[in-house]
Amino acid sequence: MKNKIPVAVLAATGSVGQRFISLLENHPWFEVVEITASDRSVGKTYQEACHWLITDPMPESVKNLTLLPTEANSLQKSVFAFSALPADIAKNVEPDFARKGIYVCSNASAYRKDPLVPILVPEVNANHLDILDIQQKTYGWSGGIITNPNCTTCAFVVPLNAIDKAYGVQKAIVFSMQAISGAGYPGVASMDIIDNVIPYIGGEEEKVEYEPTKIMGSYQDGKISLHPMVISAHTNRVAVVDAHTICLSFSTNQKVSKDNIISVLKNYQMPEICIGLPSCPDRGIVYHEADNRPQPRLDRNLGRGMSTSVGRIREDSIFDFRMVSLSHNTIMGAAGGSIFNGELLARRKFGF
Amino acid sequence: MKNKIPVAVLAATGSVGQRFISLLENHPWFEVVEITASDRSVGKTYQEACHWLITDPMPESVKNLTLLPTEANSLQKSVFAFSALPADIAKNVEPDFARKGIYVCSNASAYRKDPLVPILVPEVNANHLDILDIQQKTYGWSGGIITNPNCTTCAFVVPLNAIDKAYGVQKAIVFSMQAISGAGYPGVASMDIIDNVIPYIGGEEEKVEYEPTKIMGSYQDGKISLHPMVISAHTNRVAVVDAHTICLSFSTNQKVSKDNIISVLKNYQMPEICIGLPSCPDRGIVYHEADNRPQPRLDRNLGRGMSTSVGRIREDSIFDFRMVSLSHNTIMGAAGGSIFNGELLARRKFGF
Amino acid sequence: MKNKIPVAVLAATGSVGQRFISLLENHPWFEVVEITASDRSVGKTYQEACHWLITDPMPESVKNLTLLPTEANSLQKSVFAFSALPADIAKNVEPDFARKGIYVCSNASAYRKDPLVPILVPEVNANHLDILDIQQKTYGWSGGIITNPNCTTCAFVVPLNAIDKAYGVQKAIVFSMQAISGAGYPGVASMDIIDNVIPYIGGEEEKVEYEPTKIMGSYQDGKISLHPMVISAHTNRVAVVDAHTICLSFSTNQKVSKDNIISVLKNYQMPEICIGLPSCPDRGIVYHEADNRPQPRLDRNLGRGMSTSVGRIREDSIFDFRMVSLSHNTIMGAAGGSIFNGELLARRKFGF
Amino acid sequence: MKNKIPVAVLAATGSVGQRFISLLENHPWFEVVEITASDRSVGKTYQEACHWLITDPMPESVKNLTLLPTEANSLQKSVFAFSALPADIAKNVEPDFARKGIYVCSNASAYRKDPLVPILVPEVNANHLDILDIQQKTYGWSGGIITNPNCTTCAFVVPLNAIDKAYGVQKAIVFSMQAISGAGYPGVASMDIIDNVIPYIGGEEEKVEYEPTKIMGSYQDGKISLHPMVISAHTNRVAVVDAHTICLSFSTNQKVSKDNIISVLKNYQMPEICIGLPSCPDRGIVYHEADNRPQPRLDRNLGRGMSTSVGRIREDSIFDFRMVSLSHNTIMGAAGGSIFNGELLARRKFGF
Repeated sequence: MKNKIPVAVLAATGSVGQRFISLLENHPWFEVVEITASDRSVGKTYQEACHWLITDPMPESVKNLTLLPTEANSLQKSVFAFSALPADIAKNVEPDFARKGIYVCSNASAYRKDPLVPILVPEVNANHLDILDIQQKTYGWSGGIITNPNCTTCAFVVPLNAIDKAYGVQKAIVFSMQAISGAGYPGVASMDIIDNVIPYIGGEEEKVEYEPTKIMGSYQDGKISLHPMVISAHTNRVAVVDAHTICLSFSTNQKVSKDNIISVLKNYQMPEICIGLPSCPDRGIVYHEADNRPQPRLDRNLGRGMSTSVGRIREDSIFDFRMVSLSHNTIMGAAGGSIFNGELLARRKFGF
Repeated sequence: MKNKIPVAVLAATGSVGQRFISLLENHPWFEVVEITASDRSVGKTYQEACHWLITDPMPESVKNLTLLPTEANSLQKSVFAFSALPADIAKNVEPDFARKGIYVCSNASAYRKDPLVPILVPEVNANHLDILDIQQKTYGWSGGIITNPNCTTCAFVVPLNAIDKAYGVQKAIVFSMQAISGAGYPGVASMDIIDNVIPYIGGEEEKVEYEPTKIMGSYQDGKISLHPMVISAHTNRVAVVDAHTICLSFSTNQKVSKDNIISVLKNYQMPEICIGLPSCPDRGIVYHEADNRPQPRLDRNLGRGMSTSVGRIREDSIFDFRMVSLSHNTIMGAAGGSIFNGELLARRKFGF
Repeated sequence: MKNKIPVAVLAATGSVGQRFISLLENHPWFEVVEITASDRSVGKTYQEACHWLITDPMPESVKNLTLLPTEANSLQKSVFAFSALPADIAKNVEPDFARKGIYVCSNASAYRKDPLVPILVPEVNANHLDILDIQQKTYGWSGGIITNPNCTTCAFVVPLNAIDKAYGVQKAIVFSMQAISGAGYPGVASMDIIDNVIPYIGGEEEKVEYEPTKIMGSYQDGKISLHPMVISAHTNRVAVVDAHTICLSFSTNQKVSKDNIISVLKNYQMPEICIGLPSCPDRGIVYHEADNRPQPRLDRNLGRGMSTSVGRIREDSIFDFRMVSLSHNTIMGAAGGSIFNGELLARRKFGF
Repeated sequence: MKNKIPVAVLAATGSVGQRFISLLENHPWFEVVEITASDRSVGKTYQEACHWLITDPMPESVKNLTLLPTEANSLQKSVFAFSALPADIAKNVEPDFARKGIYVCSNASAYRKDPLVPILVPEVNANHLDILDIQQKTYGWSGGIITNPNCTTCAFVVPLNAIDKAYGVQKAIVFSMQAISGAGYPGVASMDIIDNVIPYIGGEEEKVEYEPTKIMGSYQDGKISLHPMVISAHTNRVAVVDAHTICLSFSTNQKVSKDNIISVLKNYQMPEICIGLPSCPDRGIVYHEADNRPQPRLDRNLGRGMSTSVGRIREDSIFDFRMVSLSHNTIMGAAGGSIFNGELLARRKFGF
């Protein structure tokens, strides 16, 4: 048994930071040894500074860790840093960590459009991790930055990719009903969402239209080429605590039947490269037979929050098919996805 | 000043029936003189039998009316009947009322597909009312049946028609986030919708794909021809009390700019034929400039629940344009729409 | 017909300020001519600066009024000022308005404990308004300050006072389930209240324990004496948009039956001094027979938000009786109550 | 290692039945081998018949068990039966199971008032289990019936008992804000609880006023004597999925300080007799320092749903003290409590 890898959580007190802390409790490969926060909280213990919002209780092991400034120099022990930083701060500081030799697994959007930074979803594009070598050489870093996608993209990219691999996806329109936890804390005011819907999330539609084309793009000769499919998105906030529900219509390159699509989803297997990673769910895709599934409260915890649920596959009069897809926005769609990426990297770099 | 027209409300104790009762209080043309209900409630007063669910209080004037059986023979005074019946019962009994000489303004779906029964939205297709004469002749009725659309269709058909009149609508995809009041009472279980979304409403998608093509169809020589546009729908239930929110993407026949579309919606005027009807809103379409509007809790009561709110007009990478549309599902989308239809008919038949 | 009294709304863009604006639309005695806000919004029109949160639409008449600084010198025309200021700012500036000759009807708590400032509820203690003369003399003001109670107190003080007048209230324990609108905007974070309860509202229990004793106290010789009853309070926030629901147990001085209590509540009449005031509800107390009433969504709008609903009168094994009481927290419990106070004052000072 | 005890779940498809199934997955002592349901579902597999409502997924091990009729003769293998039956059916059938030699751990209220049936809360009155011998002799049963309390009683009886043991509780008034899951499925209609509170739960207040007096009563010579304290209750339903929140005021026999009470709660230890039972939480009482805790969404899962959370200990102007108490209504307050009772019994009867 190898020793655990010491890791840091950057911006550990926020909504996604808390999810990192919660998921890393008793992680078999990683151990949280350092945590950072904004100036207001630096010097306090985690328990003092953190307004804990997750239904599962705060892990005992972090309660008395002291919050450090979010600077590369603050970290003395960590080999990985899981970043829950806001995009603007991530933009400034994540390269410093990479330069110092730390592997940053970032949930921030800051570097997702950098051609040398992969947006990783292990079950979709584990091979994009190869670009890390080019990234290190080009930027002169001994560490590096890898990112996970935006939470809404995460809620449908695994089944969309499975269908693409089988029959080619030509175009897709995506409509989201997103959980409040995705907006952090205090985030969405209760006066804005109880008995209400907010049909707008700033910057979200652009991310959802871009990120799948990079994730599902091909990697060759040190370059990620975007997938040529076209995506259109409508994003909405609804009164759900956790999990984003997505309705999507899509067209395939090959003309196939509804049963073909169902078969792809039902028979989906996690790729070999993910097997054995601690966060790898038994089923990457859970296909639901019931007409009225998936539903966020009932299906978000499947695969400990790392499975994507799909259902309601049916034909469409404009596109080829319609379906509903769902995953947990702060596990699969944020901290859990980022840790899964870290595990892929840990296996490759450190032989776990 | 003419005398008021005596009217009945069929299925007056249910969710839509209550809305009829509430909206007909102090109506300038109509007076509720008879109310019906299912066997369980027949013989009780309205106040005894009705589990009132609307935030505005139950009108005093109906509290002591006695509930009659839902049969044509029960009604002794009514010239109009506003029907909140379930589809299966409507199927059986609405023709009896028509035969007896009563004008049935029905919220039920039972006869919406009958080629001689119009689905009326006065600001869209008032001319379809002409088919009533054919209906009377063909079926040998001295009264008749007119219907209003399904509540989800209602939430976007006015702006879609305005755009169609200007530039031609070729196809549209529609995603709904629908209020719980649309499912009646007890309707949606709280365990199914608090902290949740239900991505399925039985029969709804079929209605949303069909009804706009009939409403926006042309009427000529006693025949309604369906509009050739293609519609695809995804329908969902969310934790909102009243008002359905719709995201839609659409393509027009003429290639036009976003500003053209905005201009059509901002400059929309209620047609002449609706002006002066008591339920006619000042603005049939309210165009919202703010990025995050319309929203159900904030916009559902515009035009006393009879306006359609639209916003977020933007280009679409697959269709031509995207937008958000919203109206009150039990006013504009049910009882209010039905009363508006009754007013149109009352003016034509009785010179109001 | 007299001319309308020109009035200002202080802090017009906040949650309570919006309610003032909404309720003063088409008010028969008052006309909003000036509005103030914090520095951030000064100089903007109301429409530009205000994130409108009320389900009824923003009145047209105020949309283009310009926001002024919240200082006595800003007001050039107003005779009354309705104050939705936060307590700390109210503390500083309300006396300046009073000194300048303006009658401040304040929803703020800042001066509620001042022995010369009444906490007015017209149907309970209209006679406390007599203290205004003493206030003017003592403080050298040509205007004055009158306050309405905290919204939670408002949700039960009318029935408690009716029972007190009949049989004497000796003690009461009060448990609240309060709406989110009472916390302003952004106020309560959605992550804190969806699928949750917050069993704490800072400073609220102290107000609920004190204010009824002043409101129900006796006025004599220029002095308000506190009522000797003892009150204990537990205050909680729940996921309701508007209206506070109160469970209370109380003991009376006289030993009476449950039917005596019910009779007091059912036969309650608004006092003569309130009749004809525009905000005066037909029924100050609405007694509900149903076991499961009152309920906030169904009963908050009774009397246009100015009635108190009560129900579930039953015996108690520790106290004498138990009941449930409810009123609209931003109408009766804030802006509506304050306007009602203004009307009482307008009648007395200006003969309306 | 002993073999597991084969157990049945009666009424396994309902809301509490599902909790039993979920909590018994991988239970170290019990194995679900038989499940029963109402006629409508008999003969179907669990997966076919059950509308699963719990956020954690349905255990694989029960998916294909066939539902049996709820009759003693249906069970062929079970030594224990965990009963989620409605009270009226429980009344009829539970004695048949006991007669047949099965130990019924019942969540139903049917026999809670039977003088020979204990209402068990292991950390409070494990000694009441002694009455089982008398029950068997008196009724001629080879099995028996033990019950757990109503879920609302469960939310405060552990801390109330701890305080009673230390200083004697004389009287208590209890206000509840109860979760929708307590009403089963479909249970509370969404139209009744979204943006609303229901201040009434049929029969609940009577249970809350009686059950603690039996649970905290003394057992001697084959007889449970009721505790002499007086309890008054107000019960309410709010829009929370799981966990009941209780505000209570109470007086003690000894005059003590707030710090004495806090000390009792902070230093609470599970009694020796519970240690080692699989459902026994590390901390039976979790004392929260924060002003605004406990909260249902954040604290219901402490001790895997078997801890009672308390906070806000403060003085009271009518009683001696006030506090807030909370536990998970379908774990601690229903299925989890019943299983904990079963474990106590299994240790005693079968030496686990």
